[in-house]
Amino acid sequence: MKRPTIADIARRAGVSKGAVSYALNGQPGVSEATRANILAISKELGWQPNSAARALNGARAHTIGLALFRPARTLGMEPFFMELISGIETELADRSYALMLQVVADHTQEIEVYRRWWGEGRVDGAFLVDLHLGDARVEAMRSLNMPVVVIGHPSQAGPLSTVWSDDGLAIRETVEYLVALGHRSIARVAGLPRLVHTTLRDQAFVQACQDAGPGRVEHLILHTDYTGEEGARMTRRLLSSPRRPTAIVYDNDIMAVAGLSVAQEMVLDVPADLSIVAWDDSPLSQVVRPPLTALTRDIPAYGACAARQLLALIAGEPAALSVEDRPATLIPRGSTGPARGPR
Amino acid sequence: MKRPTIADIARRAGVSKGAVSYALNGQPGVSEATRANILAISKELGWQPNSAARALNGARAHTIGLALFRPARTLGMEPFFMELISGIETELADRSYALMLQVVADHTQEIEVYRRWWGEGRVDGAFLVDLHLGDARVEAMRSLNMPVVVIGHPSQAGPLSTVWSDDGLAIRETVEYLVALGHRSIARVAGLPRLVHTTLRDQAFVQACQDAGPGRVEHLILHTDYTGEEGARMTRRLLSSPRRPTAIVYDNDIMAVAGLSVAQEMVLDVPADLSIVAWDDSPLSQVVRPPLTALTRDIPAYGACAARQLLALIAGEPAALSVEDRPATLIPRGSTGPARGPR
Repeated sequence: MKRPTIADIARRAGVSKGAVSYALNGQPGVSEATRANILAISKELGWQPNSAARALNGARAHTIGLALFRPARTLGMEPFFMELISGIETELADRSYALMLQVVADHTQEIEVYRRWWGEGRVDGAFLVDLHLGDARVEAMRSLNMPVVVIGHPSQAGPLSTVWSDDGLAIRETVEYLVALGHRSIARVAGLPRLVHTTLRDQAFVQACQDAGPGRVEHLILHTDYTGEEGARMTRRLLSSPRRPTAIVYDNDIMAVAGLSVAQEMVLDVPADLSIVAWDDSPLSQVVRPPLTALTRDIPAYGACAARQLLALIAGEPAALSVEDRPATLIPRGSTGPARGPR
Repeated sequence: MKRPTIADIARRAGVSKGAVSYALNGQPGVSEATRANILAISKELGWQPNSAARALNGARAHTIGLALFRPARTLGMEPFFMELISGIETELADRSYALMLQVVADHTQEIEVYRRWWGEGRVDGAFLVDLHLGDARVEAMRSLNMPVVVIGHPSQAGPLSTVWSDDGLAIRETVEYLVALGHRSIARVAGLPRLVHTTLRDQAFVQACQDAGPGRVEHLILHTDYTGEEGARMTRRLLSSPRRPTAIVYDNDIMAVAGLSVAQEMVLDVPADLSIVAWDDSPLSQVVRPPLTALTRDIPAYGACAARQLLALIAGEPAALSVEDRPATLIPRGSTGPARGPR
């Protein structure tokens, strides 16, 4: 299986490769009849007039890159990325842009992949997601001079363009709501500790608990890898402790659902014995019983916003350095309620 | 923002573009000192020695294409595609292959996209998913001579290579199980009617019901667009009918979960009044109460199998025309039980 080449066209037309090149590029050196014949043959063979040569001449690739440093198998379980990608696609599809996706083993490979894609003219720009503290990708992307949009908080993004939402605000709203319901011992089952947004949420959580008054709200943070298994394990640990919390805020919906199952397996009533809040709201949170109180955001809209920002950068249009999307909002459902008094 | 070109290197080195080309391509015509200087500058500027020119020379793109004819927004809700993609990625990541993803508006655009990607040397091969009856893509791909693997049944795939599993077997197993539990009125809430695999499942469902004995099992099929909304609507219609079925088999888990909610809203007990079976088993089916009996398959493994098949085709290795993956197996959980006798 082979793509048609100029040599194939030349052979079929019975002319030299040079003549084919003249004909296809609209240059003099061939008769009009020969040119017409060559164009007809090239069309028949499916030869692409402006093929990879376009990239050599600096033409757009009409493709955007997204390297993901996540175990490939977990992609299907975490609704966040697929919703983000679906939102990105809504913008790209309209402009016939493709998304180039590669799962990488670490940031070094990710930088290598982006360098190659950019150098080879295979992408016009890229997204950076899941920024780490002191992330080496920021400086690497800056030095490549490639259009890049960071999907995450500007504080660690250096000079790169960002699309972000204020997670601190959402966490504060949640803590204040739980405190108002009488909760005095609140745990947070958080995601990966080295991620920037985990750290920002951790800080906002501690601050909001402290702001409830000196010594008024006990608080505890446990970090996980975002999987249901770790969400369940941490919940078991919290609910087995002599001073078990009356409310747990989870960093995604998978862990919150797993936590709900653990509470039920330990014969605790949700919300009478334990209130549960999920960060991110998928169909999952709404079909369990009780349905989960969740911090909901329009993730496809977030992805679409990032795509518009990147396409503007690529087109050389004026683009804001940082675009703040709406923060997550708290949707109370059946999994949160008043804290029981001490027994 | 611009990629470094040969002209940039020439300017920096104070030599002609021709000299840079000689130096980079290892041809005579420049002194060793000049060559070393040019190579150093090209490295410093991040110029890629074998950039897009490689595609012109027939080098591999190390990229596989996947065009999806689905509304972009639904991608994030249907676990099937993300699990398939995550399985494909497990194989691609190991070989540093990328996946080029584009959401298309129809099959015509899909064919156009594949033709362009292939012609421009941007992909080495592609997947076809969601085969329709009389699918125009089959002949188009054949005539392109591009390595293609159809993820779906061979019956409509013409000469193209396929990876598939026997859905008919899985449906038959399900119907026989329900009949053994005493069900005599079974409905199937199916996916899109124009898809090959919907048709095959429809036929197998009717056949299995008929094979239970003449006139023994009433059966009914309703088609949907796979969304929870349509799953709920069809369930309401079935449960409101004077001869409501005692068991419903859904074509995905999203619809089965929606159907369970409708049964609960109509104060029907699952499984005492209604047994429910979901095709495909995501975390969703296991967290609802009762947990759903499901036809489970390892979708990431299915995607990985398709990726291995396509990579073998691309490498010109001997590859089977058709690879049959394991069929889905029935995992009974709390949502199915004996049918109640007539009341």
